[in-house]
Amino acid sequence: MSQLIIALSKGRILKDTLPLLKEAGIELLEDPEKSRKLIFPTTHPQVQIIIIRATDVPTYVENGAADVGVAGKDVLMEHGANGVYEPLDLDIAKCKLMVAGKVDAPPVRGRLKIATKFVNLTKHYYAEKGEQVEVIKLYGSMELAPLMGLADRIVDVVDTGKTLKENGLAPLELIAYISSRLIVNKASYKRKADLIQPLLQQLEATVNAKK
Amino acid sequence: MSQLIIALSKGRILKDTLPLLKEAGIELLEDPEKSRKLIFPTTHPQVQIIIIRATDVPTYVENGAADVGVAGKDVLMEHGANGVYEPLDLDIAKCKLMVAGKVDAPPVRGRLKIATKFVNLTKHYYAEKGEQVEVIKLYGSMELAPLMGLADRIVDVVDTGKTLKENGLAPLELIAYISSRLIVNKASYKRKADLIQPLLQQLEATVNAKK
Ligand SMILES: O=P(O)(O)OC[C@H]1O[C@H](OP(=O)(O)OP(=O)(O)O)[C@H](O)[C@@H]1O
Ligand SMILES: O=P(O)(O)OC[C@H]1O[C@H](OP(=O)(O)OP(=O)(O)O)[C@H](O)[C@@H]1O
Repeated sequence: MSQLIIALSKGRILKDTLPLLKEAGIELLEDPEKSRKLIFPTTHPQVQIIIIRATDVPTYVENGAADVGVAGKDVLMEHGANGVYEPLDLDIAKCKLMVAGKVDAPPVRGRLKIATKFVNLTKHYYAEKGEQVEVIKLYGSMELAPLMGLADRIVDVVDTGKTLKENGLAPLELIAYISSRLIVNKASYKRKADLIQPLLQQLEATVNAKK
Repeated sequence: MSQLIIALSKGRILKDTLPLLKEAGIELLEDPEKSRKLIFPTTHPQVQIIIIRATDVPTYVENGAADVGVAGKDVLMEHGANGVYEPLDLDIAKCKLMVAGKVDAPPVRGRLKIATKFVNLTKHYYAEKGEQVEVIKLYGSMELAPLMGLADRIVDVVDTGKTLKENGLAPLELIAYISSRLIVNKASYKRKADLIQPLLQQLEATVNAKK
């Protein structure tokens, strides 16, 4: 009997995906936020859920180490999502990918310095605009970079805008509206169609019913 | 009056560095582990501490957004530490950088697949051995990769060995002994010698006294 591995990440994606999976008959038996475990059985005998970093979800799905995953459009844009199918916008974990900078900063002379964890998509964004910029890769706390003079701007996801505001930063440009997507390994999509198609249909129905 | 910015990261580095800084007359006024703030004043009027991701510490120090930082040798090896001075081994947060794999895994045919967050140092390690491998970048939970068939091996830091053992993995090769180092921005080293030299001397004395 074939097994289906679903890759999720802690935080908003987990919180917003579990109710959708529940409608499809897949429920966790324990709370991953309170566990150090990484692999979780579910109420569905053929389905396991793994909990990994948001950034690692496309890597697991692309390589077939997970069959299905949920990943933010930001992460997919950064990763380059050609290796996976992206059949469904789950319409959850919505936010905006933005350029932000210091409130009342003087105009920048010369090349803009941009700190971000989204190096590829940031380079792409400025290349499209025909602007030469220097991109500095960070792994966390983007909002600190302009305060410390490490960068003139940041590219990061913005939800309520609280993090920016608390740090004296303001949103400057909208790069993209973000939501989380269902992604599927290309081989699994065919080989495990018996498990994946009903899941997809149920998720789609649930997402549409919420609109 | 010149100001000194020290970059630390949460977890073991913070815990082990604070007692050393205390001996040098630098104490935090609140506990960063319990705060969302990123910039902290200290008992020393000219010294501030910023709390960032471990991986970001060399970036901040290299670019002069922090003058001084504490970073694990693993992070420095991965980052490439040519842009900063590394004057002192603080002899803290010690662990081992290792190759690990599944207990009793059958021999691998063809190219080894290695999952790690240390992509550069892993490529370097296998290149030195003259072995062609495929390196898969992950951001967290390396230990899951062999269990899910994403990789044959991982390269990660090992402290007690508990994480490996709990996941049915065993250490296979030692790449390097790791400890945390003091790193200093090259320009700051000269320009802020009045602040940095006494700090260095005091830290060195404290570290030596503990040996
Ligand atoms: O506009 P806000 O409502 O303040 O939300 C924005 C914050 O959310 C994101 O971080 P997240 O919480 O996803 O964690 P991370 O910093 O680990 O990425 C982002 O990096 C901001 O820090
Ligand atoms: O041998 P052990 O004592 O089990 O320690 C090893 C663990 O420590 C490191 O992670 P860390 O706790 O630094 O956090 P991280 O996973 O966020 O890197 C490493 O990635 C292992 O998971």
